[in-house]
Parts: sequence; structure tokens; C-alpha cells
Amino acid sequence: MTTGPSGEDSLIARYFKPLATDPGAFGLVDDAAVLKAGDEDIVVTTDAIVEGVHFLPDDPPDTVARKALRVNLSDLAAKGATVAGFVLTLALHRADDAWLSAFARGLGDDARTFHCPLLGGDTVSTPGPLTISITAFGRVPAGQMVPRTGARAGDLVMVTGTIGDAAVGLDILTGGPAATALANDAAARDTLIGRYRVPQPRNALAEAIRAYASAGMDVSDGLAGDLTKLCAASQVSAVIDVARIPISAAAQSVLANRAADIEAMISGGDDYEIVCTVPESRSESEMLLAAAAQAGIVLTAIGRVIAGSDAPRFLDDQGRELPLARRSYSHF
Amino acid sequence: MTTGPSGEDSLIARYFKPLATDPGAFGLVDDAAVLKAGDEDIVVTTDAIVEGVHFLPDDPPDTVARKALRVNLSDLAAKGATVAGFVLTLALHRADDAWLSAFARGLGDDARTFHCPLLGGDTVSTPGPLTISITAFGRVPAGQMVPRTGARAGDLVMVTGTIGDAAVGLDILTGGPAATALANDAAARDTLIGRYRVPQPRNALAEAIRAYASAGMDVSDGLAGDLTKLCAASQVSAVIDVARIPISAAAQSVLANRAADIEAMISGGDDYEIVCTVPESRSESEMLLAAAAQAGIVLTAIGRVIAGSDAPRFLDDQGRELPLARRSYSHF
Repeated sequence: MTTGPSGEDSLIARYFKPLATDPGAFGLVDDAAVLKAGDEDIVVTTDAIVEGVHFLPDDPPDTVARKALRVNLSDLAAKGATVAGFVLTLALHRADDAWLSAFARGLGDDARTFHCPLLGGDTVSTPGPLTISITAFGRVPAGQMVPRTGARAGDLVMVTGTIGDAAVGLDILTGGPAATALANDAAARDTLIGRYRVPQPRNALAEAIRAYASAGMDVSDGLAGDLTKLCAASQVSAVIDVARIPISAAAQSVLANRAADIEAMISGGDDYEIVCTVPESRSESEMLLAAAAQAGIVLTAIGRVIAGSDAPRFLDDQGRELPLARRSYSHF
Repeated sequence: MTTGPSGEDSLIARYFKPLATDPGAFGLVDDAAVLKAGDEDIVVTTDAIVEGVHFLPDDPPDTVARKALRVNLSDLAAKGATVAGFVLTLALHRADDAWLSAFARGLGDDARTFHCPLLGGDTVSTPGPLTISITAFGRVPAGQMVPRTGARAGDLVMVTGTIGDAAVGLDILTGGPAATALANDAAARDTLIGRYRVPQPRNALAEAIRAYASAGMDVSDGLAGDLTKLCAASQVSAVIDVARIPISAAAQSVLANRAADIEAMISGGDDYEIVCTVPESRSESEMLLAAAAQAGIVLTAIGRVIAGSDAPRFLDDQGRELPLARRSYSHF
């Protein structure tokens, strides 16, 4: 849970923050909570996905399962936690064998790939849309969860992977301008749709994030809005060089066609990449880059943390600030 | 998650048991999972409630919140765990201030009463019914969670509180025969409706359950079905003396009016009492009874565990077996 400018965040701050009395809740301003357990902390994160909101009714069931698990794994990666397992709550209209077996196959494949065993859960009937709620667990040495609050002026701002693919993928799936722009490029369409349906959480980088990042979170509701939240939690600002934001070749071709704009891509949701801040004083940024290269994960410096309380500024190659009417997705 | 005879249980066994590869998952045959953490285990349980399925659309929001938390607290109590906190996933149609503030007030009151702080969560929009999914955490010394599997022939079968009130309460709320039978008894109606809307989890007895019970679970889907699951997990059977099953005065008056039958009450859901098995060899049952008396919780011996693999038999005061067409609630 988070506090910040969106409707969802103010709802949480208003109604639920008073209930978050345990220090491990971080006042609901982080993406995960901590349960103290001797020499280590259990990192807890929970994220739900709803049919028609986070995935489309005709998305393949195995990709729905993967997305439900991976949006949680992504939080653990950004918090520097080693994956320990998950519990699943499945609210279903009815027990459909074909759907359930494909769903369980996708979930099982990912549970193995990410070493994330199912620990328990609850299956309930609902007259409404299919809803999958997962709570996932990770481990860090005591006190070492990567917080939102640790960014300091001078730190580099870095992101994994590429940004905006999922927003364009959703535009394709819903018949938007990107669908037309890529009408003759099935490979690019598949890549972008795949990025919407099946996020690539960066758990292979979790230990290095824990070792070298001063703050981190996963990019789930749009890079601009999520970085704004991280800066607010750390009481800093940032300047981002938009030209450095990593954009995939498939998304580049959509931009070139003017079938999407960069503002929509950096304020769209569903990236599930990591944004983190990294000091340079003891070569932390070089060591993190080396760890990313070894893990085969693209990691890019896109700007720098500065002192101040303004929202981060996104500057184009002329040094002009990008107007961002809406920095992130909000449910309310 | 559980395996057993119902549609829900066979769904879980078929599709999800293969994913439960961690020993802390107990093959999904228990009500809770364990995360190893040094000298102690973190006990994890998750239960969701859906509008129109687990609560009624016009139930007061504060009671909906209390029920959502308490059905999870009830699992922790039955597992002998000390409450540590919870995470909340709220799937809402829209952010309605009046509803949310009453919901948060009820949740906050219970979080304080049960020393169960909110640790984090997720709030999402849904076009469907309001759905509240909670994952709750408790602590036990390493290896001491009370399992479903520990019942041995000769143990006493004991239950807390009274059985069947919530099933009658739901019958009243939905205008069934009990509503007519109690048309002139507002106090009894309120008691039974209250038992449906706001369970009374027995967390004050958790440490004693851990010390003295050989097996335990909470009664959520009906005493008959839940005891059947416990016996199956322990590879034993049981004989229950129906006349000893504790029935509240309010429910007794409905039974006396023939507006409900005992079969429906012991196979109805939503009791959220503890059923446990307790050895007598070292006076465990007396010590548990003493602890319950001190905590102000009614605890009643209702029968005995026997060897065998048959489902537990429920015998009336003539020694005749009660016919139980349907032992518990199942979602599918």
C-alpha cells in the first residue's frame, strides 16, 4: 500500500494508515511489509488482479496465472528479497476444468522457474469477475529490505528492462492506434502483447539490488508516478533524461508511427520493471551494472536524484520538461 | 486449502497440490502454512469473503470488516498461533466514503482488540461484488503449529462455543423458517444474526490449544464436514454424541419450534469455533478445560476419536446415527 497523490493512495492513507501500527508496516508507504523473525525478516507483499481491469477476459488462463504471480514476484525483486513462497486466493464463477488446468499449469511452471512454492490459499465462488489475489513471501537479512525511503541527492536513478511495452500491448489488445500501426508486424505485436500479459520480474537481480541500491520499487502503475512516489517517500526530487529511458524496438516503431506518445508510455502501467536509486560513492552503480550484465538483465541509468520536494522532472533532449497530465494509473 | 470430499477440495487437490512442494505447505491439507524463521515459525492463513456469498449486500460495513478479519483469526487460534498481523486486499466497485469509513472503523477496532496490526495490502477496482481477501500471520515456537494430522484413537473431541448459531442467523436474514419461529423474539434473532455477521474467534485460547491439543482446526464449513476432514488427515474416525454438541439457548428455541433441524446446524457453515482433539494421558483435557474456563470460553467434550477410516458418526441419544446428506458447505 502506498500514500501519494492518486485516489487509491489517498483512500489508503485516509482509511487504513491508522490501522498500520506495526513498524513492519512502514505506515503503508512501501510496497511490502516486514515480519521480524530472528536473524532474518520475512518480506510480505500482496497484489490482486481482476478480470477486465488487470487482464482481459480472453487472455489465456496460463498467462493470467503467470501475471498474478509475477506482479508479486516483481515487488519482492525490487525489495531485494529472496523468494520464499506464496498463498493464493481464487474467486471463480465456476470450476471450469479446461480453464483451471491451464491456469494451474502456468502457475506451476512459474512456481518452479522462480522457486516460489504454493503454501496455501482459499478458493471461493463469486458471481463477479474472476479475481486472483496472491500474497508472496521473501527473505532478507534482518533490516535489509530495500525501502522506498533511502534515495539521496546525487544517487543515480536506474531502471531494468524497457518501459512502456505493456501500455502499448494493452492498446493493441483493445484495438487502439498501436494495433493499426503494427498491422503488418506480427512479431512486434506479439512482443508487446506478451509484455502486457506476462511481466518479466527481475528476481535474478534481487540480491544485487539489496547490496547496492539505496531505494527501490517496482514500476507497476507507470514510471513517472511510481518514481514520484519513491521520491516523496525519500523526501527528494529527481531529474530524468527522457532520451535515456529504455524503449524496446517494437515500442520504438509505434512511437515513430506516432501511434503512441512517450508521455503515455512513461505514465502507463504494467511494466513490472524495477526503478531504483544507486549511490556512486563506493562504485555501487558499477557493481550493480556488472551484476545485471551477469544476470542478462538490461539496466539503464536514466537520471539523478536531486534535493528538493518537487515531483521528478522528465526532460527531453532539448532540456524541456515533458508535460505529464497523469503520472500513473489509479483505480479510483 | 484442504483436500477432502467436496468439489472445492477436489479442485484444490487436483490442480494445486502439485504446486505445494514446500514442506511448510503440508500438501495443502491444513488450514495454514508455515514459513520457517529460526526459532519460530510464521503461521500463514488466507481467507476471502465475497458479497452475496459470505456476507449479504446490506450487512453493515463494520461487521463485514470484522468478519473478514475474524475468519482468519479463527484459523490462527485453531493452529495455536499468537497473532502477528495481516495484509488486506480490497476489491471495490467504487470508493464510497461512508462505506469505507465504517469498514475501516470496524477493522481498526478489531485490529486493536486482537493485537493484529495491518501490515499492507492492495486496493483494486472491480465491476463485480465487493471481495475482501485477508492473509493473516501468527507465530508459534518452531514445529509447534497444531496440525490436522495429530488426532489419535482415544483422544477426546472438543469444541469451543456453540454450534449452528450462524446457520440459523443466515436463515433469519434470508427470511427462512427461523425468521417466522422467532418473529416475537428480537433478542434471540439479534443474537443469531450477530453470530452470522461477527464470528467470535477464540484467540484467547490459542496458547492452551497449542499446549494441549493433538489436532485442531476451525469450524468454518460445518462441524460434521470439518471434523470429517480432520479425521481423514489424521487417519482416524470418531464417534460424536449429538446430545453433547453445545447449542445456544436462542438456537434451542428454533429447534424446539422445528424451524431448523440439528442436521442443518451441524453441517451449516460460519461457526468459526475450534474443533480439536485432546489426549487424556497426562491430564491434557483437564488442563485445556481449565484454561478455557479462565479465558471465559465455553469448551465442551462432544465425543471421542476411534481407530478406523470411516467418516465420524454422529449418534443421537438413542444411539442411532444421524443421517447427514451433506456434511459441509462447498463453493463448487
